[in-house]
Amino acid sequence: MLKLYFTPNTCALASHIALEFAGAEYELVRIDFKKEEQKSPEFLKVNPKARVPALVTEKGVLTETPAILAFIAQSYPEAKLAPVDDAFAFAEVQAFNSYLCSTVHVAHSHRMRGSRWADEPAAWEAMKRKVPESVGECFELIDRTMLKGPWVMGKDLGICDFYLFTLAQWLEADGVDLTRIPKVIEHRARVLALPQVKKAIGMETA
Amino acid sequence: MLKLYFTPNTCALASHIALEFAGAEYELVRIDFKKEEQKSPEFLKVNPKARVPALVTEKGVLTETPAILAFIAQSYPEAKLAPVDDAFAFAEVQAFNSYLCSTVHVAHSHRMRGSRWADEPAAWEAMKRKVPESVGECFELIDRTMLKGPWVMGKDLGICDFYLFTLAQWLEADGVDLTRIPKVIEHRARVLALPQVKKAIGMETA
Repeated sequence: MLKLYFTPNTCALASHIALEFAGAEYELVRIDFKKEEQKSPEFLKVNPKARVPALVTEKGVLTETPAILAFIAQSYPEAKLAPVDDAFAFAEVQAFNSYLCSTVHVAHSHRMRGSRWADEPAAWEAMKRKVPESVGECFELIDRTMLKGPWVMGKDLGICDFYLFTLAQWLEADGVDLTRIPKVIEHRARVLALPQVKKAIGMETA
Repeated sequence: MLKLYFTPNTCALASHIALEFAGAEYELVRIDFKKEEQKSPEFLKVNPKARVPALVTEKGVLTETPAILAFIAQSYPEAKLAPVDDAFAFAEVQAFNSYLCSTVHVAHSHRMRGSRWADEPAAWEAMKRKVPESVGECFELIDRTMLKGPWVMGKDLGICDFYLFTLAQWLEADGVDLTRIPKVIEHRARVLALPQVKKAIGMETA
């Protein structure tokens, strides 16, 4: 059985939602960042990067949200979570998810994880101040050029929707002006209304 | 015919090398960052993110290195650049490439692109000072836990090798202590010795 290591209010939610939609059998294991459990010797054996999500499969451990999402889509083709047999359409999915992990999530991380990239508290404060603008610009670009509607890739719900929805949970805390990203906000509400999404969130906050 | 938009000394090299190994027919289009061509109206129509690489295909434009690499591997299966038919092995490839784009490349970018994440020059300087350590830690983790040898994924050369090699071009400029990452440095030399790699680099610097 699959085992997903997660922490509430992190990007692990995207993989969790995908497992629900796939109809996968899985077990959840909560990692408590406040207790620094991600740095425990036990967890570092699972993921030496000390991050969530990590998905334990019968063949080994997978990390990184875009990789886990694509794995779930490929492993449960009947759930149709990505166009895995169409190289171009699948690459469009991957490009979107790659933008989320390498640019959008990274911009967000400068609000609370400045110590990854500088040692001085003054620099961390400078990074925090920029987050509403830098994260806002990412979501405006998504709103204007990427989100086809009603779902990210158009008519078919899939892994891009779970990932975008997950990162969009942080918009208010990041201080982004929501009036500038109406399509993203509508999309977020549309995803939140799905029973599998409500169930996943409920399991994480229980 | 495929068209790859690139800039010398950027991560676009990874996609360029993959096209060479795939035996693809392609055209190169150079984007000059010094002239800010990436922000020209013409290029923004190709890639609204104002970044390279961008790969124009007969079905549309693809961006983001992990997506382009996976697309090339799927589109030219006879070149065997990734285990595209094995969901777990392919996810391992994707996890590695995702780590490169979301963590390694991002750490590197703090040396010259601090203005993405802060407005104050003092903060940019603080970011620059941290780069040898933050990039170094990423490559040490790769050296210790990811690079199986002789190639990233073990016995088969593939897209992870092209991407790691490309980012490893910047180690000296990033001030990383090379003595701590012997496997990465050996791997870099091994990839550089491949004729397709020499050809791609030669085309970019011509």
